Amino acid sequence: MRASRFLIATQKETPADAVIISHKLMLRAGLIRKMAAGLYNWLPLGLRVLRKVEAIVRQEMDRAGAQEMLMPVVQPAELWQESGRWEQYGGELLRIKDRHTNDFCLGPTHEEVITDLIRVEVKSYKQLPANFYQIQTKFRDETRPRFGVMRSREFIMKDAYSFHLSQESLQQSYDDMYKAYSAIFDRFGLDYRAVAADNGSIGGTASHEFHVLADSGEDDIAFSSGGEFVANIELAEAISVGERAAATEAFTEVATPGARTVDDVAKLFEVENSQVLKTLIVKGVNPETEEETLVALVLRGDHELNDVKAEKLDIVSEPLTFASDEEVKAAVGASPGSIGPKGLSMPVIVDRAAALSADFLCGANKNGYHFSGANWERDIELGRVEDLRNVVAGDPSPAGDGVLDIKRGIEVGHIFQLGDKYSKAMNATVLDENGKQATMIMGCYGLGVTRVVAAAIEQNHDDNGIIWPDALAPFNVAIVPINMHKSEAVAQQCEQFYQDFTDAGLEPLFMDEAKARLGVMLADVELMGLPHVIIVGDRGLESGVVEYKNRRTGEKQEIAKDQVLAHLQSLIAN
Amino acid sequence: MRASRFLIATQKETPADAVIISHKLMLRAGLIRKMAAGLYNWLPLGLRVLRKVEAIVRQEMDRAGAQEMLMPVVQPAELWQESGRWEQYGGELLRIKDRHTNDFCLGPTHEEVITDLIRVEVKSYKQLPANFYQIQTKFRDETRPRFGVMRSREFIMKDAYSFHLSQESLQQSYDDMYKAYSAIFDRFGLDYRAVAADNGSIGGTASHEFHVLADSGEDDIAFSSGGEFVANIELAEAISVGERAAATEAFTEVATPGARTVDDVAKLFEVENSQVLKTLIVKGVNPETEEETLVALVLRGDHELNDVKAEKLDIVSEPLTFASDEEVKAAVGASPGSIGPKGLSMPVIVDRAAALSADFLCGANKNGYHFSGANWERDIELGRVEDLRNVVAGDPSPAGDGVLDIKRGIEVGHIFQLGDKYSKAMNATVLDENGKQATMIMGCYGLGVTRVVAAAIEQNHDDNGIIWPDALAPFNVAIVPINMHKSEAVAQQCEQFYQDFTDAGLEPLFMDEAKARLGVMLADVELMGLPHVIIVGDRGLESGVVEYKNRRTGEKQEIAKDQVLAHLQSLIAN
Repeated sequence: MRASRFLIATQKETPADAVIISHKLMLRAGLIRKMAAGLYNWLPLGLRVLRKVEAIVRQEMDRAGAQEMLMPVVQPAELWQESGRWEQYGGELLRIKDRHTNDFCLGPTHEEVITDLIRVEVKSYKQLPANFYQIQTKFRDETRPRFGVMRSREFIMKDAYSFHLSQESLQQSYDDMYKAYSAIFDRFGLDYRAVAADNGSIGGTASHEFHVLADSGEDDIAFSSGGEFVANIELAEAISVGERAAATEAFTEVATPGARTVDDVAKLFEVENSQVLKTLIVKGVNPETEEETLVALVLRGDHELNDVKAEKLDIVSEPLTFASDEEVKAAVGASPGSIGPKGLSMPVIVDRAAALSADFLCGANKNGYHFSGANWERDIELGRVEDLRNVVAGDPSPAGDGVLDIKRGIEVGHIFQLGDKYSKAMNATVLDENGKQATMIMGCYGLGVTRVVAAAIEQNHDDNGIIWPDALAPFNVAIVPINMHKSEAVAQQCEQFYQDFTDAGLEPLFMDEAKARLGVMLADVELMGLPHVIIVGDRGLESGVVEYKNRRTGEKQEIAKDQVLAHLQSLIAN
Repeated sequence: MRASRFLIATQKETPADAVIISHKLMLRAGLIRKMAAGLYNWLPLGLRVLRKVEAIVRQEMDRAGAQEMLMPVVQPAELWQESGRWEQYGGELLRIKDRHTNDFCLGPTHEEVITDLIRVEVKSYKQLPANFYQIQTKFRDETRPRFGVMRSREFIMKDAYSFHLSQESLQQSYDDMYKAYSAIFDRFGLDYRAVAADNGSIGGTASHEFHVLADSGEDDIAFSSGGEFVANIELAEAISVGERAAATEAFTEVATPGARTVDDVAKLFEVENSQVLKTLIVKGVNPETEEETLVALVLRGDHELNDVKAEKLDIVSEPLTFASDEEVKAAVGASPGSIGPKGLSMPVIVDRAAALSADFLCGANKNGYHFSGANWERDIELGRVEDLRNVVAGDPSPAGDGVLDIKRGIEVGHIFQLGDKYSKAMNATVLDENGKQATMIMGCYGLGVTRVVAAAIEQNHDDNGIIWPDALAPFNVAIVPINMHKSEAVAQQCEQFYQDFTDAGLEPLFMDEAKARLGVMLADVELMGLPHVIIVGDRGLESGVVEYKNRRTGEKQEIAKDQVLAHLQSLIAN
């Protein structure tokens, strides 16, 4: 492409409403433009990246045997009523009416549509398993769209849905999709992790998220130093090793006026936060009597409650709900800042790590008082012990291979064993081998195509702009002339490179605006993130060389002009 | 592709609500499935065709220097209010509210969005001309969606928009798009015509429709036998040759009780309809006094009024509106069935052909009476004569090259010089060469991607199903084995063909369901329209041949098995 025939829409200023780096750089490099809240135009440069993402996704899905199709953006309410989601789905489902006042929605996802289609088209077990995908525009009416295309309202997803009669078959397709996703992210050239994820009703191994690692990620991912273990922090088991130390201090009630938080108490007693136990009161239901009850959860002051783990306990209500101050006062007789595990008239569940504490501090269930020198069993009964907390860096790996580290990730893919959630509600059956109607089970496999673009930038940028991996670059090489309007030799050599690179299947961007300043062109090329830059000037040509600059490493080198193509091919092929 | 891994969703029954052949065959061949009124799922087979259309469109648009981008489906009301179309556009514009009750619409077209974008991104005449396109989902909330994807609510269009500072530049891009569209339809392998179309305010040459010819088309297109002239019948000038014959009959008022239509009168007097003149009363405004008036339009009984031509007359209101029976009675003193041009107290405009009539019949402006033997000038004043009628087959070509024929066409593309309609309303200006703000002018260029698929089928089918042109075929060759489950030789040869064809870049569909019956497979392959069929059986293999069948011609021939690939390549290359 010649720059003179292409909309290069770089800008120096960073728009005020852009917070994260990918959003800033996508605006500054001219990949996208905001049309309205959460709605973006993809400019020609951005679309080229998007199409690269789509092409890789399509190739690997096809290779894995999935069949591409295309379902509508606008979906009838009837299907969503049948699955039950018309009522369940929140305000992100944009419900609309057509001119005849019939109800429709803009599809945030297509489980209902594909299930409706397949229950008609697939009649026999002989047609299973089958896996269908599309690359299609979705809409989620986010309350507060933000971060550019990272959390926009209209976006493009690849969504796939597989159909099966047995768990074994579902597991096989799931494993195939796991491999296909790994191949896709490998080809993108991104640092990513497949992370065991919580999917509520089915269990950990039936769902994996694919995260691109980046400091700005919204999710915390725990890794073992041995490489065996990867999980979203929501799901990572906290292993506590060692035994409880023996009690050494006397159990004492101490007046602690004004000390209401862990920090306050630790400061007052001049101890680490880990020495203070915190007691959180949440709502629950006694699983035997089915009566509502409050439940006390006890953790070390330096640990965070893991909501997902708490919700999995039989006695804790889902979603996790904290008791109000008034409810706590009514049940305990003290305010939340002075609560502790001793003598509570409600079930008490102690985190594994907290259960190993000795000589600890905790609330005395009396406003303005705490206990010091408290010890389990000696002073306070230790009942049920569970894993309640988020893991932290340095925790032992649950797989036994060293210790955990925690990095942030951006979720860009999610594979999921749905089971019969939709097929049962929508009566999607086929004839099985015995000629009987059997309900299919399903998997679904999402990949955020537009989100990948932003995530790739979050992971690959520097102060000068984007640094594209070769596979995603809108153009993989820039040809930058020095004073082309004054030198016929420079112009001719650039034209020759442009022709040769194009013929060789590279995708050059020729900065052919005759009078553009070198510094401006190089800044643009760096901002746009083109991986390889060839700078052509009279001085070099006199000795038969041009300058090559690598965007990622910053490395510069002189290369004989007839070696340039081979050099680029060796770099881009690898 | 192996049929065993592909959703072949052919069906024998024609769904009840399908009226036109393309809709029937798209359902029967398994290209699409209806999800709701005007909303279709594209099954894997159909999507393959759609992608071929898209790829050809994309290549030719790129070649013509247009830049691809992508704009949102959901558009904010503000932009449509700025252009004035929020109020003007009918119910086909689906207006919706988001969760914050802000107004949006689903885009039926993107003039507002692109103009909003370009007025910010393009600052200088140096960046012009520029032409941007997208291939994107559109929505038009048709009152009565019908004919499958031919008139659906959600559909895919390629829409392009060009920006200029001069009419010469716009004309250049328009001509480039005309050529690009011609290249696109040539590559599709469809019989089409670029037709001068009426676009209201700008004039005939500033708009062309691209029609795929098919008997089921909604538009009538007039062609000259010499090939010089092509126009939508709305725009084709009616040439009347010869002179008016001399009067031979006496002018007589005749009682014609009950004769109210041209047919009635012609039958009563035993003459052709052409001998009866009809007088239509429409609303108008006197261009000098600006007072409302009725206007009488006089045509031969065998000719049809051309609304577009009538609307172009200075005295006739647009849109064309007929006077009510009451208004006619009040103005003339007779009912519409007895109206004629004699002695009317309103402007009378006579069609060119009607002005050549002699000894004609017409209403006497007296209920139940007609004049016979009427002649212009002698009996009735002949005032203004204009071209008011649709051309008919046999009319002289306006280009002077023989006579006109009329065929039906399906409009699948439309190129259009917009002028400053949007740029002026939305204040889209750039700095011109003199450093002054100048309003851009625009062109727009639409192509109905989903519609092309249906139109191709309307033009290419027979009783057995679709007949794809090679360029649009979902698979260009079918490999059909005879009794593969009983013959290792057949299985091996088919596998070999499948491998060889794939390696050679052909797109084979291997009907590899071991026990499928030959007749069923051949019927499916014909219904799906695959252009080339290779049938492999033991008997042929014994003498080293297979059968080739051409879908379009029905021709069958035996071909040596090692000549098959070369044979296919020679056919598909041409």
